[in-house]
Amino acid sequence: MDKKPIAHHISHQYDADLEDLRSRVFAMGGLVEEQVANAVTALVKGDVELADAVITNDYRVNAMEVEIDEECTHIIARRQPTAGDLRLVIAVIKTITDMERIGDQAAKVARMARQLAEMERPRNEYVEIQSLGTHVQTMIRGALDAFARMDVQGAIETAKEDLKVDHEYEAIMRQLMTFMMEDPRTIKRILDVMWATRALERVGDHAKNICEYVVYLVEGKDVRHISVEQIEEAALGKR
Amino acid sequence: MDKKPIAHHISHQYDADLEDLRSRVFAMGGLVEEQVANAVTALVKGDVELADAVITNDYRVNAMEVEIDEECTHIIARRQPTAGDLRLVIAVIKTITDMERIGDQAAKVARMARQLAEMERPRNEYVEIQSLGTHVQTMIRGALDAFARMDVQGAIETAKEDLKVDHEYEAIMRQLMTFMMEDPRTIKRILDVMWATRALERVGDHAKNICEYVVYLVEGKDVRHISVEQIEEAALGKR
Repeated sequence: MDKKPIAHHISHQYDADLEDLRSRVFAMGGLVEEQVANAVTALVKGDVELADAVITNDYRVNAMEVEIDEECTHIIARRQPTAGDLRLVIAVIKTITDMERIGDQAAKVARMARQLAEMERPRNEYVEIQSLGTHVQTMIRGALDAFARMDVQGAIETAKEDLKVDHEYEAIMRQLMTFMMEDPRTIKRILDVMWATRALERVGDHAKNICEYVVYLVEGKDVRHISVEQIEEAALGKR
Repeated sequence: MDKKPIAHHISHQYDADLEDLRSRVFAMGGLVEEQVANAVTALVKGDVELADAVITNDYRVNAMEVEIDEECTHIIARRQPTAGDLRLVIAVIKTITDMERIGDQAAKVARMARQLAEMERPRNEYVEIQSLGTHVQTMIRGALDAFARMDVQGAIETAKEDLKVDHEYEAIMRQLMTFMMEDPRTIKRILDVMWATRALERVGDHAKNICEYVVYLVEGKDVRHISVEQIEEAALGKR
């Protein structure tokens, strides 16, 4: 319960453990952000080599998840964290699950990029995929920044973007369906584009989840499954 | 570290807490299994009321996740579990995330069911969706049973089913694409069927994840991101 008398050093080491945990999370976050960026570029440019690199690198994302997960378990067992420290560890356990899933989605986009590279390219050069991809990348970056700075307002702003991503996604899907109907020969290709679009939309969902863990981490409130407006109210109401 | 001298009672209460946690997980598992079953029935039978019930009940799944999550945090903070107890709590935290996502997928199938109920019905009465739905339901049941009995072999058997689910999914998707190409007027309807099929395939993924947590719980080994054969080797090698 009371570990202060034992040694200053132990507490220092504990701080160092938590700091190490945080920096590993940011390293993993940086990697998945890069994976998404590269997957989108691979699709838009039809770059098979880049797509292959994304698919190969997915094991790095997975390995990082397992490592950080083990570190979290060790910290709980060794340090028996409470209050804010415990919330940090729980938030990390959840965050890395979502980051791993972002990695999965990036690999999925990369697989579609490989297939699409072999097919006829549309006149618009997949500009809508680039736009959606940039949007969700901004969300990942925003979620990581909010986590790093323990910034509730920043987390809320980023979470709000998910609604815009959803609208963008729906507009793209409607357009793709129209293209399919106009020219059924494009069905196979457009289905691949649809799967890639869907994967990017899911990246936005995961980034939003991470924002919710930031609010939980800072405020100690579970804000999942409620609207962004309610999150804002819950987080800012007490100010 | 050594809590035995304090009181037998405390340990009893601790056991009761863990047992309560387990039974809540099974209650949540039962609910998501039912949600998937009802969503599939709603789609196959074109039953809009049942689809609406699934969509409405999703909040119950979400509420259960938040409650169990809080209970896990409390147990960690209050009981400072180690070894097997800590693995149980971590396995629960991860399991309920996957169960919540299964609930999301059930709601997604239900939304497609609503839309499809308004459209022309295919001659085969969505028999392939019923078949895939039954398959993934069996996986959920198998994962929950393995969790309840701490049964590694059962978990591995169930995890293996996911490969069959993936093959079934791919066969359905190929067939649906063929239908689309043959009759482009069906594109809109078949896209909805595709989203529902995809959602069911993801249910299989989540059930497989739960199986992996069972192996981690019992064996203390992280077996994610490796093949089922490797899981089997890792789990059974030491026997």
